Amino acid sequence: MGVDLDVHVGRDALASDERIGVPDDTELDNWLTRARDAGAREELLETMAGGYTGAVAVLERGEGPTVGLRVDIDGLPREEASGDDHTPAREGFRSETGAMHACGHDAHVTFGLGVLETLADDPEFAGTLKVFFQPAEESIGGGKPMAESGHLDDVDSLLAVHVGLDRPTGRVVAGIDGFLAVSQFRAEFVGEPAHAGAHPSEGRNAVQAMATAVQNLYGISRHEDGATRVNVGRVAGGTATNIVPESATIEGEVRGETTELMRYMRDQADRIADGAAVTHDCDVDVETVGEAPSAASDEAVAAAVADVAGDVPGVDSVSDREDLGGSEDATYLMQRVQERGGQAAYVVVGTDHPSGHHTATFDVDEASLDIGVAVLAGALRELSRT
Amino acid sequence: MGVDLDVHVGRDALASDERIGVPDDTELDNWLTRARDAGAREELLETMAGGYTGAVAVLERGEGPTVGLRVDIDGLPREEASGDDHTPAREGFRSETGAMHACGHDAHVTFGLGVLETLADDPEFAGTLKVFFQPAEESIGGGKPMAESGHLDDVDSLLAVHVGLDRPTGRVVAGIDGFLAVSQFRAEFVGEPAHAGAHPSEGRNAVQAMATAVQNLYGISRHEDGATRVNVGRVAGGTATNIVPESATIEGEVRGETTELMRYMRDQADRIADGAAVTHDCDVDVETVGEAPSAASDEAVAAAVADVAGDVPGVDSVSDREDLGGSEDATYLMQRVQERGGQAAYVVVGTDHPSGHHTATFDVDEASLDIGVAVLAGALRELSRT
Amino acid sequence: MGVDLDVHVGRDALASDERIGVPDDTELDNWLTRARDAGAREELLETMAGGYTGAVAVLERGEGPTVGLRVDIDGLPREEASGDDHTPAREGFRSETGAMHACGHDAHVTFGLGVLETLADDPEFAGTLKVFFQPAEESIGGGKPMAESGHLDDVDSLLAVHVGLDRPTGRVVAGIDGFLAVSQFRAEFVGEPAHAGAHPSEGRNAVQAMATAVQNLYGISRHEDGATRVNVGRVAGGTATNIVPESATIEGEVRGETTELMRYMRDQADRIADGAAVTHDCDVDVETVGEAPSAASDEAVAAAVADVAGDVPGVDSVSDREDLGGSEDATYLMQRVQERGGQAAYVVVGTDHPSGHHTATFDVDEASLDIGVAVLAGALRELSRT
Amino acid sequence: MGVDLDVHVGRDALASDERIGVPDDTELDNWLTRARDAGAREELLETMAGGYTGAVAVLERGEGPTVGLRVDIDGLPREEASGDDHTPAREGFRSETGAMHACGHDAHVTFGLGVLETLADDPEFAGTLKVFFQPAEESIGGGKPMAESGHLDDVDSLLAVHVGLDRPTGRVVAGIDGFLAVSQFRAEFVGEPAHAGAHPSEGRNAVQAMATAVQNLYGISRHEDGATRVNVGRVAGGTATNIVPESATIEGEVRGETTELMRYMRDQADRIADGAAVTHDCDVDVETVGEAPSAASDEAVAAAVADVAGDVPGVDSVSDREDLGGSEDATYLMQRVQERGGQAAYVVVGTDHPSGHHTATFDVDEASLDIGVAVLAGALRELSRT
Repeated sequence: MGVDLDVHVGRDALASDERIGVPDDTELDNWLTRARDAGAREELLETMAGGYTGAVAVLERGEGPTVGLRVDIDGLPREEASGDDHTPAREGFRSETGAMHACGHDAHVTFGLGVLETLADDPEFAGTLKVFFQPAEESIGGGKPMAESGHLDDVDSLLAVHVGLDRPTGRVVAGIDGFLAVSQFRAEFVGEPAHAGAHPSEGRNAVQAMATAVQNLYGISRHEDGATRVNVGRVAGGTATNIVPESATIEGEVRGETTELMRYMRDQADRIADGAAVTHDCDVDVETVGEAPSAASDEAVAAAVADVAGDVPGVDSVSDREDLGGSEDATYLMQRVQERGGQAAYVVVGTDHPSGHHTATFDVDEASLDIGVAVLAGALRELSRT
Repeated sequence: MGVDLDVHVGRDALASDERIGVPDDTELDNWLTRARDAGAREELLETMAGGYTGAVAVLERGEGPTVGLRVDIDGLPREEASGDDHTPAREGFRSETGAMHACGHDAHVTFGLGVLETLADDPEFAGTLKVFFQPAEESIGGGKPMAESGHLDDVDSLLAVHVGLDRPTGRVVAGIDGFLAVSQFRAEFVGEPAHAGAHPSEGRNAVQAMATAVQNLYGISRHEDGATRVNVGRVAGGTATNIVPESATIEGEVRGETTELMRYMRDQADRIADGAAVTHDCDVDVETVGEAPSAASDEAVAAAVADVAGDVPGVDSVSDREDLGGSEDATYLMQRVQERGGQAAYVVVGTDHPSGHHTATFDVDEASLDIGVAVLAGALRELSRT
Repeated sequence: MGVDLDVHVGRDALASDERIGVPDDTELDNWLTRARDAGAREELLETMAGGYTGAVAVLERGEGPTVGLRVDIDGLPREEASGDDHTPAREGFRSETGAMHACGHDAHVTFGLGVLETLADDPEFAGTLKVFFQPAEESIGGGKPMAESGHLDDVDSLLAVHVGLDRPTGRVVAGIDGFLAVSQFRAEFVGEPAHAGAHPSEGRNAVQAMATAVQNLYGISRHEDGATRVNVGRVAGGTATNIVPESATIEGEVRGETTELMRYMRDQADRIADGAAVTHDCDVDVETVGEAPSAASDEAVAAAVADVAGDVPGVDSVSDREDLGGSEDATYLMQRVQERGGQAAYVVVGTDHPSGHHTATFDVDEASLDIGVAVLAGALRELSRT
Repeated sequence: MGVDLDVHVGRDALASDERIGVPDDTELDNWLTRARDAGAREELLETMAGGYTGAVAVLERGEGPTVGLRVDIDGLPREEASGDDHTPAREGFRSETGAMHACGHDAHVTFGLGVLETLADDPEFAGTLKVFFQPAEESIGGGKPMAESGHLDDVDSLLAVHVGLDRPTGRVVAGIDGFLAVSQFRAEFVGEPAHAGAHPSEGRNAVQAMATAVQNLYGISRHEDGATRVNVGRVAGGTATNIVPESATIEGEVRGETTELMRYMRDQADRIADGAAVTHDCDVDVETVGEAPSAASDEAVAAAVADVAGDVPGVDSVSDREDLGGSEDATYLMQRVQERGGQAAYVVVGTDHPSGHHTATFDVDEASLDIGVAVLAGALRELSRT
């Protein structure tokens, strides 16, 4: 792409202190080696080493507002389907790394590149465009370091985007609301092993502590101020049938309609983990693995998207507002912009997807790529004129 | 009974610091008034005021060892059956106080008085006889204060006795073992009430804390060193369906084949109550309501009982040793004697009882009263010669 | 009150098949006797016998719509405060029955009578007025039988009313929304008792079943469609510390922002009770004690109230809409009217109350009685003209 | 070993219907291939295919009783230590398969071969010797099929043996008692996944079911008839933090001082798993993974061992009886012999082991190999003369 961009990669795109849920060194090394073997440029690898995999591309076109587009770029640890009914397999662009873009983030990357290309040559665009290629959305780990990188601080209008989400090709949602703030955590209970037949009294049972925590985590009181959620998504514990289990882990999450409600849930969860550990004479360590605030789309920005979308070929249905009912760490970037006086909206570009997000046969309808680029570039152009 | 006894009543028979589970003043006053109305002597009422309802009767008959007999005298809060098939009702000696001797402790009192009468006139008895009329066995509250009263300290041989326990008239067990040490406790959880519809998040839920405790109390690990027990016998909590419950109580117990095992169980129970309270942000107070150690019958004393019993008219079956599988605070008195170098045994005098202990139709076969007095007096006479 | 009314009392005001939570015969007899002793007319007592304590008063004033007012009339089982700082005590109208109107339902009765008196003589009122004096609101038991009595079926506009609810004298809320549908239940677990020391394996533990149910009732999954609630307000179980508990009860409730959400919660609760019983080899019976749907105030009716209220002397603040966050079985009556094509609103008449609803010192500011009558009579007059 | 043996291998040594816990085909193929690659004879591989890895060696020496020795031969899935302080590593016989004999079963194999060699040339031995090389003791899966193979049915006296168990080199225990009967099970809960933020009500939560089961499994009532145990040794469940978990597993065990007590515990466990599944609308399947009865050593056989052991060089301490406090499926073989009128004892040959059984640095003192062979061969010779 022969465009005159200023690109901030890796450590230059992310605030290093705000990263959470970074993989361990073995995994980071593994992927770095794969990238090198695949022919990545060495100077890029250097700046991305340590898991700094994001980038911010800046396009300057004279005086005007600064507009931004956030696209997330990470994949999921899932073997992609290999059957002939799966287009990427049939046409030869199936992932062979054991990971895949099962949520459409590769379409998001395409949106980002397409918008850069479009506005680079658009005489009506005046100002600065920043495209935020954000890592680690799935683990809710990348939004915060990018939000705190400084690159958001002068953005006047920000769009974030997602493809699909059960909306068909031709449908555009101009402004998503109802993001639940989320906090994901990992609790590790540690007790003392013992032979379950010969010395049961000598054990301190981490699985009993874990079960006590699970029972009571789901029992956190509902809150009168709005929606809350709690889930224990994964558990594991113990070593063998005949050993009193000395360790157990919970990977869970809480959510809230507001950041305050999420915080209420998390405070309860932390206390429950402590209480369960006391109950069974174990130790517990609760670590935050990912976190994102709630956020809402601003009226004016969503209106700009809706206006433009109505005129884009292939768009047959535009919705002003819809609720997500899930979580997204784009909210960190939206919140940063809003706190600094800017405005933001979260856009959905519909696509016919043959199976659900996060499944091995997920794929997008490529017709939605052109639509997305046209809607996003058009809206950002409009916003640059405001 | 014209016997020259030295009788220590009430405060003179019980160590005041060791009493637990004493009823509240209202109840004590109620029973004191009833006793006064029934014609009790005022000077006795004075020394028994405050719930000091035991007595130690001492009979001296020259030089010789000190032998003891412990009989428990308390009733149970239960309305006695009034049907014609219940002998006490038919013959006019049914209890009318709302309490009754549903465990045969009135037979025990009879044993105590009968033994005093018998040995007072027995030229072959030489030494001192002490009969311990112990209160509050059912609540496991009276054994300890009597054991610590000082009156046990010079006893060389002690018998404790129970009637029935599913053994028929004519059967005598010379030495009971297998007393489980027991600790009874009352845990009170206190949180914060709130309207369950309008302000659920403001509550701190004592019933959730109680349920967490119940689940985990029963889950205390078995112990490789011997039998243990745990039970939550009574629970109560909350005020109304639509109020987050602010208080809840557990009345429970733990037992162990040894006092150490009971102590292990109780330590776990205390920690679990604490953990359950932390889990639900409540406070908890755990109070010991009753406690008794384990104990075993000494060989020599049980042998003396077995020897004598074989010759008593009406006895057709003598067992040297049997297990109780329950608890009894006579163990405090037995333990006191054994720690001071004396010996003790717990005797069962069989009786045909028409229904189970603690039921409204419990009654004893009066033929077993003569048997009991003969066996116990005979054994104590033998033991005074040792 | 010399007004020409047609009054339907007791069995004539309530559908007999729909009553739930009716007290047992002993309690009903007790209150009937008290009423007779207090001088109640025998023919009224006859029609109210069996707990049929409601009434519907009908005032006819020519051609016109049928308008209705629902007031609830029941008290609470609570001893009224007797201190001099409690106006009813000081002025001699304190309740002496052990029950009291601690929620202001006596003010509601006053509203009902005052509105009848006002409109009886109001030349501008044309049509029919029905005042529904509903029993058993507190136990959520009276709304349904009154709603199904037939008397609601021709009502065109219905007002329901409550005094206070933390709104001061002079404030009127024209239309309450946010009623949570509610279902109150009583679950009774029955197992088998056993001696906890000697035969623990023979018990089937109802308290363990209850605790399992409590833990999992609070753990019912939140629902994405709206607010839900669950509470175990009261529990009790067991007989004695040393007996494996054979019975235990839960008095609980679930709520939902819609009737469907309430129903979802209740279905889960029923299944959890079953599962907990299976887990501990107990039986369980779950009985519905009270139930009410959700409801919303209709725009037109609330507007009529707001219009009138603005001109009533003493009213200084009128609110169009507020949320309750609780439950009320007036919703049965509102729903009945709405299903038949009529409209309804729930009104709050503020009053300075010295302490919270349901406390022993609850009282109303009598200035709010005139305000309530004026607002309600005025609004019903307006609605009769529609 | 040039001994004239009749050897029954694989399918000829095991009753095929009684096998439990057999690995899946992939794992069986893997090990078969390894054995082939290591040079195993093809005709043996054929008879052992499908996991039939045991053998019975029969040595006939004229008229006389049939005596037996059971040795278990399986390893554990554990990487053996590779440090220089671990003798097998330093001396070059460390296991390189990823599995190791971390419980001394290689010493048991040595005992079996040594006893065959010794008695083959012993003129004082008259009768038949059978050595049972039993697979799958660790998973409690091999004892039953070998016991039911028919080979045990004519055994008059059986010895089973274990090395170590915290007894030092030079110590021999002639008769182990206190085997706890054991049942190991795997419970698999299956529900329905759902997005924890967007559609929590659509999930059926298998981790909640598992936690409910864990809480209540540990809460199974103690039994008055003797020692019991319960343990949940391993749990796992769920897929991702934000998914309501659709599956969860428990790998657990129950034990009892008698087979009846084990059965009591297992019945409770099965019912609890069902109840937990009902509670959370899940399905559950409980599979038995391993099982062994309790057993006791016969007086006469243990006495023969003790007699012989006293004269074996290197033995400095002989104990007649000790308790194990654990479980062993040798009890199936002992029980089989005892039911047919024979007698059996379980012998421990002490060995200094540098670290605990089942650890990566477990090893035996080779001096105990000669001791074991001498004690076992000597005792079997004596028993052949009875």
